[in-house]
Amino acid sequence: MEPIKETPKTKVKRGPKRAVFDRKVLYQILDEVRISHVGFAVDDQNFVIPMLSWRQGNQLYIHGSRGSRMIKALTEGANCCVTATIVDGMVLSKSAFHHSTNYRSAVVFGQFRLVDDPTEVNDTLKAFLDGIAPGRWEEVRAPTEKELKATSILAIELEEASVKVRSGPANEDAEDFDLPVWTGEMKLKQSMIGMVADDNNQPAVKTPNYSRAWN
Amino acid sequence: MEPIKETPKTKVKRGPKRAVFDRKVLYQILDEVRISHVGFAVDDQNFVIPMLSWRQGNQLYIHGSRGSRMIKALTEGANCCVTATIVDGMVLSKSAFHHSTNYRSAVVFGQFRLVDDPTEVNDTLKAFLDGIAPGRWEEVRAPTEKELKATSILAIELEEASVKVRSGPANEDAEDFDLPVWTGEMKLKQSMIGMVADDNNQPAVKTPNYSRAWN
Repeated sequence: MEPIKETPKTKVKRGPKRAVFDRKVLYQILDEVRISHVGFAVDDQNFVIPMLSWRQGNQLYIHGSRGSRMIKALTEGANCCVTATIVDGMVLSKSAFHHSTNYRSAVVFGQFRLVDDPTEVNDTLKAFLDGIAPGRWEEVRAPTEKELKATSILAIELEEASVKVRSGPANEDAEDFDLPVWTGEMKLKQSMIGMVADDNNQPAVKTPNYSRAWN
Repeated sequence: MEPIKETPKTKVKRGPKRAVFDRKVLYQILDEVRISHVGFAVDDQNFVIPMLSWRQGNQLYIHGSRGSRMIKALTEGANCCVTATIVDGMVLSKSAFHHSTNYRSAVVFGQFRLVDDPTEVNDTLKAFLDGIAPGRWEEVRAPTEKELKATSILAIELEEASVKVRSGPANEDAEDFDLPVWTGEMKLKQSMIGMVADDNNQPAVKTPNYSRAWN
């Protein structure tokens, strides 16, 4: 797998030690995050919109209502910035100043393209749904022509990206070492915590187990 | 508490049923999210950067290195968009198309101001740290003058904001009701899952319990 190339835009100026060029790390972040924040401008106004996102190969996909302002701007080639962030923990230091956060983040620059090949649309919608609930694509009613027309799928190539990872303890000052203050990491994690059936279920239908998508 | 006013910029065009004007909901989202995504532009390039954020009253605070490109752009009055997103669950429908997400999001527009009053700096840093680890501000070494000079605190007024909440089951089509497919919500939650001590602890120092900040 090719390492991520550094460009003037992606060069990490703050905390350069945290920069990561391993494409596998970029892929892991995008696979785990589920929601990316897409930044773009319309008439000089910035917008940052949370979008479900999923990765296949070297592309990140999103979908939305065909007529929306955002989908219009993005399909017209707006330069955008897509950011995915996972917080792994709060880093507690002996001094207020050296508190920090352990995180993994990816900032992707580029332009989205409209996915208009029917095979790519079908394959990527299957990958999207199965990534959330493995096997579900085969269980549910497939999209109709009309439903597919109402939805736009967009993809961005993972070409220009800035990936940062922080892990480990706080960077204590030497003179703080002897302070009797607990230091360590407060671990955070997003988990799937349960399946809640709604009223539309037939009594005979059992709750499926999709937990393997959510280790 | 004043309801949130709708402006041309914040008017929810997609899914207007999901728009919420209750300021308490905005505050709850910002208090729970911990990380906001800040969008701004420098020389026509959009950036979306994840930032620890915390709310006091009607303001949202962030902090960063004084010399960073982002802090410079924001203190110079860049128009920006700050987005906070919490995913409560994946909504599983009987059809591929009607799958959805239960979420709470806030999109705030405006400009940050530099917080330069020493009392406000001190009070808000205390609120920030105590919001993550209640009582910790009094336990740790306080920031020095030099450390305070290296950090900029910025605040944005919660004036123009678009808040959206989706909850509940999928919007099934009537003709799908009889399909023997499980429907419901796959609940997601970010939790504090543990405290991991690092090697800088004295043996006598006990692990503190900050869990009340993370219900």
